[in-house]
Amino acid sequence: MDKFPIGIIGGAGGIGRWFAAFFEQAGYTVHVSGQTSGLRPAEMAAACPVVIVSVPIGVTQAVIREVGPHMKKDSLLMDLTSLKTGPVRSMLEASASEVIGLHPLFGPGVSSLEGQNVVLCPARAVKWIPWLRGILGDYGAKIVETTPERHDEIMAVVQALNHLNTLVLGLSIRETGISREELERFSTPLVRARLEAVENLFSHPQLYAEIIAENPHISRILDLHEKAFSAVKPLVDQQGAEALEARMRQENRKG
Amino acid sequence: MDKFPIGIIGGAGGIGRWFAAFFEQAGYTVHVSGQTSGLRPAEMAAACPVVIVSVPIGVTQAVIREVGPHMKKDSLLMDLTSLKTGPVRSMLEASASEVIGLHPLFGPGVSSLEGQNVVLCPARAVKWIPWLRGILGDYGAKIVETTPERHDEIMAVVQALNHLNTLVLGLSIRETGISREELERFSTPLVRARLEAVENLFSHPQLYAEIIAENPHISRILDLHEKAFSAVKPLVDQQGAEALEARMRQENRKG
Repeated sequence: MDKFPIGIIGGAGGIGRWFAAFFEQAGYTVHVSGQTSGLRPAEMAAACPVVIVSVPIGVTQAVIREVGPHMKKDSLLMDLTSLKTGPVRSMLEASASEVIGLHPLFGPGVSSLEGQNVVLCPARAVKWIPWLRGILGDYGAKIVETTPERHDEIMAVVQALNHLNTLVLGLSIRETGISREELERFSTPLVRARLEAVENLFSHPQLYAEIIAENPHISRILDLHEKAFSAVKPLVDQQGAEALEARMRQENRKG
Repeated sequence: MDKFPIGIIGGAGGIGRWFAAFFEQAGYTVHVSGQTSGLRPAEMAAACPVVIVSVPIGVTQAVIREVGPHMKKDSLLMDLTSLKTGPVRSMLEASASEVIGLHPLFGPGVSSLEGQNVVLCPARAVKWIPWLRGILGDYGAKIVETTPERHDEIMAVVQALNHLNTLVLGLSIRETGISREELERFSTPLVRARLEAVENLFSHPQLYAEIIAENPHISRILDLHEKAFSAVKPLVDQQGAEALEARMRQENRKG
């Protein structure tokens, strides 16, 4: 396949910029657009057989509805957000093109695709799926393919639950009033990584708020987190270390 | 100071064994004892000017009460547990010797002291504190000295709160029924580290149950964790991503 132009809406920053650099070094011409720069959606769709939407979750579907109608039937529309059910449905509805939801499970700080997990949700994809698998695979990505629904169900755990849990830790820590410097001096390397994760969460409020609150399974996740705490609390403050240890041993046998 | 023998009760495993190897390569003769092996407490106290207690938190004070009365006035009794108020009080009461509570903030997997945090609580220490600061400092440890009470107050956050939080995450994840292998395939490197932390917690139930449940501030910690969750819950499931984002921005400004 000849090298064709690739368009990335939101490619001026974050993971969009990362993929712009990735495709450029792979030999493609990449057009990026930001909120006020670069090609407009219709121009992007006209110029590029592959268009990737990489904007915050909250505006992803609006951007898809803008660009979708301009996509040609034999072109490919993709998005990079952390949720797949809504965006993939919108891409299918708004366009006649092929559609693949893509979720790269790494941040823009990584130096290569080697060993990184990437989820693909091929929703209407015949012509383009071998190309996408090929280029991601050639650069060492570990590809997993699933439905948007299953993706979001698993993300409810690995992302929404995990970040919710970190948020609860962060708010609790702030409430103690002990400074981060003081905590660091008394910390193991693993705890320092955890304090770093808390800071990272508070530094990207839009991203993490959307990953948590927009996940379609978030009510169940809140419920699981609340019940787990309620199961632990009496073991800790009424029954003590031995009862807690026994409960943890149970989980260890299960795991 | 000539190289004298050092005794480590509980030095057959874990962090006790790590310190046995550390002092040996620094040129000291080290006597270790396990539950059924090595010198008995009275023999240990007679043979070694420095005796270190390195047994699980739950039995630390009982072991201290056994060895303490045999310690000579000009010798040094230390412990390595993750809590300091109880063990240091017991060491002061049970012995006439010098007493320093020591909490190494690393696990037995590290290859050197270089850059590792070590907390000292010098409780009755004149002759021995320069020696201890010297040897730990020579090998690159970052030493912080404080009272047992302040130590436990900070550990309530960096250890009890942190591990409680990981325990809640772990129980929630298990409840979803999704296997670890499946979660790993859909995870970022940071999430994989978190899943690893959960497994590590469930693999050492006694250690973590004691760190959580035996901390003297655990009631307050439970309270903080519960309140933080209660503050987040309505933002997530009633008000949505924007309200949650606004709340996180507030913390970011404070931090």
